[in-house]
Amino acid sequence: MAGLNRRVVLAERPTGMVDERTTVLEEADVPEPGEGEALARVRYLSIDPTIRTWMDDAPGYLPPIAIGEVVRSGGVAEVVRSNSERHKPGDLLFGFTGWQDYVIASEAAGYRDLPSGVSPTMALSLFGVTGMTAYFGLIDVGRVKEGDVVVVSGAAGATGSTVGQIAKIKGAAKVIGIAGGPGKCAWIVKELGFDEAIDYKSEDVAARLRETAPEGIDLYFDNVGGAILDACLAQLAMHGRIVLCGAIASYNDRSALTGPANYRNLIIKRGRMQGFLILDYFDRLPEGQAEVARWLAQGKIKSVEHVVEGLENAPDALNLLFTGGNTGKVIVQV
Amino acid sequence: MAGLNRRVVLAERPTGMVDERTTVLEEADVPEPGEGEALARVRYLSIDPTIRTWMDDAPGYLPPIAIGEVVRSGGVAEVVRSNSERHKPGDLLFGFTGWQDYVIASEAAGYRDLPSGVSPTMALSLFGVTGMTAYFGLIDVGRVKEGDVVVVSGAAGATGSTVGQIAKIKGAAKVIGIAGGPGKCAWIVKELGFDEAIDYKSEDVAARLRETAPEGIDLYFDNVGGAILDACLAQLAMHGRIVLCGAIASYNDRSALTGPANYRNLIIKRGRMQGFLILDYFDRLPEGQAEVARWLAQGKIKSVEHVVEGLENAPDALNLLFTGGNTGKVIVQV
Repeated sequence: MAGLNRRVVLAERPTGMVDERTTVLEEADVPEPGEGEALARVRYLSIDPTIRTWMDDAPGYLPPIAIGEVVRSGGVAEVVRSNSERHKPGDLLFGFTGWQDYVIASEAAGYRDLPSGVSPTMALSLFGVTGMTAYFGLIDVGRVKEGDVVVVSGAAGATGSTVGQIAKIKGAAKVIGIAGGPGKCAWIVKELGFDEAIDYKSEDVAARLRETAPEGIDLYFDNVGGAILDACLAQLAMHGRIVLCGAIASYNDRSALTGPANYRNLIIKRGRMQGFLILDYFDRLPEGQAEVARWLAQGKIKSVEHVVEGLENAPDALNLLFTGGNTGKVIVQV
Repeated sequence: MAGLNRRVVLAERPTGMVDERTTVLEEADVPEPGEGEALARVRYLSIDPTIRTWMDDAPGYLPPIAIGEVVRSGGVAEVVRSNSERHKPGDLLFGFTGWQDYVIASEAAGYRDLPSGVSPTMALSLFGVTGMTAYFGLIDVGRVKEGDVVVVSGAAGATGSTVGQIAKIKGAAKVIGIAGGPGKCAWIVKELGFDEAIDYKSEDVAARLRETAPEGIDLYFDNVGGAILDACLAQLAMHGRIVLCGAIASYNDRSALTGPANYRNLIIKRGRMQGFLILDYFDRLPEGQAEVARWLAQGKIKSVEHVVEGLENAPDALNLLFTGGNTGKVIVQV
């Protein structure tokens, strides 16, 4: 296909936020699909904190993005031309599209069809990696149960907002969200049904945890790490569980990577702290998506999306996650 | 019974090691057993790092020892007079005797008979809290399995020396012990069958872990906390487990209580870090003791004891654990 493929590539490794020196928009030819492959137009991008970790030249669960390479990202793409029996024009696919206009889809690259009846943006939010991270992290890793006191940080974000809602559905006695600013705090209580909100920007998180969870925290879902993780460890209930999902507090500042001094409370409280990645649950996504679809149909859960227009704005959209400028899932409409 | 009961009481809360100001030997009347109670002569004391934590006025899994109170301690005592059908003179009992000559045993206080055929010192070591901590920590919490690369710190101590031996029995591919000094390092390899030893006093632990566990650590049994815990986190294998048993590095110096900055590796490696206390396994002790007795009879495991003479030397015996002056289980013969 004649035409141009706009691509945002990693030009330099960032030390803090991404900017015009670290991520650069360039143009290339639209790639040609080979035998068994399809050409797909990228429609939406899933903007996740983990993208920032892939930009560091540090060991991780996936190799770092190479300099000059398109920024790795989940996304939804529409098949426009196909040499594959599996894909026909108009099909919507989910996979690692990268920050670009066009991508070649092959079965080997692990593209999947969207869950049926689900819009592209919802496929990236409630039914995507963030929603499924909330689902499997809370249920499978955290083993949430009726009567639990559940705390989640990043509570107004894509994963945190879903964690709180699922915890309520699963019978948690109390759900406490930690978020930045009075607007987000009011929103998670009024719109999403959280029982309590703690504003980490203006409140003493440790003191408020003692106040709102006087009997201790049964399950803490950690999206941020740092001082908030430490405060939750200090207030852990007997046999408390901590689900480690992310450590966003340190992604732009590796010197900020301090350890939780209160980890010793894991011994006193016979607690468990466990890390996980949604990658390991890809085979079980249909199970989680089916249950979330039922809750959605019953009006028990909301998908919250924050859409940014334009591929060229993908770097700014990523920075939103670290400045707290978003509410819910950040998606770029290409 | 006329006579005197020597007791070591907590006179002041220590800030570091215990000394003659913090623990004081005093004399009191020998207590009188009431109806259903027995008077028992304390024969041996189990000297464990956790005793030091009970001396701090800090929240823990048991209340702090009060000022003026006998130092809490496990021990073996022999019944000398009994008003109870359950105990007869000559019976050996295991329980919280405290650092004193005589103790009143009642069923309510949770005294137990010694496992049959087991000597008093072995009842406090291989069959006592340290041996059973090794057994249940490794098997139940750490879920040791064939082929695991296992690392244990405090490897020449009562718990660590047992952990390494049980790991070999359970089919670990490699057992690496971290201990202080060339003597202990040679001993755990030659006498206890460890595959490798790392001398934390003279070697770079992180570098030696990369060298001896190049594919990563499947199971780390942590007795010390601090920098060694952090080094093990950095070298964790995929799905690695960390059993938190103690944090001896910080017991005498609370300012030394830093958190493990590499905890983020628990996410990348989908790892689990879990604390536990042998208290929760008291109902299952007979199960662990029976298996250890079989291994002992088969010559597969050794009990290593370090006996100190005299009740008055109990404080010095406790300090041995922190100066690394012991090999194996420290026991005071009263």
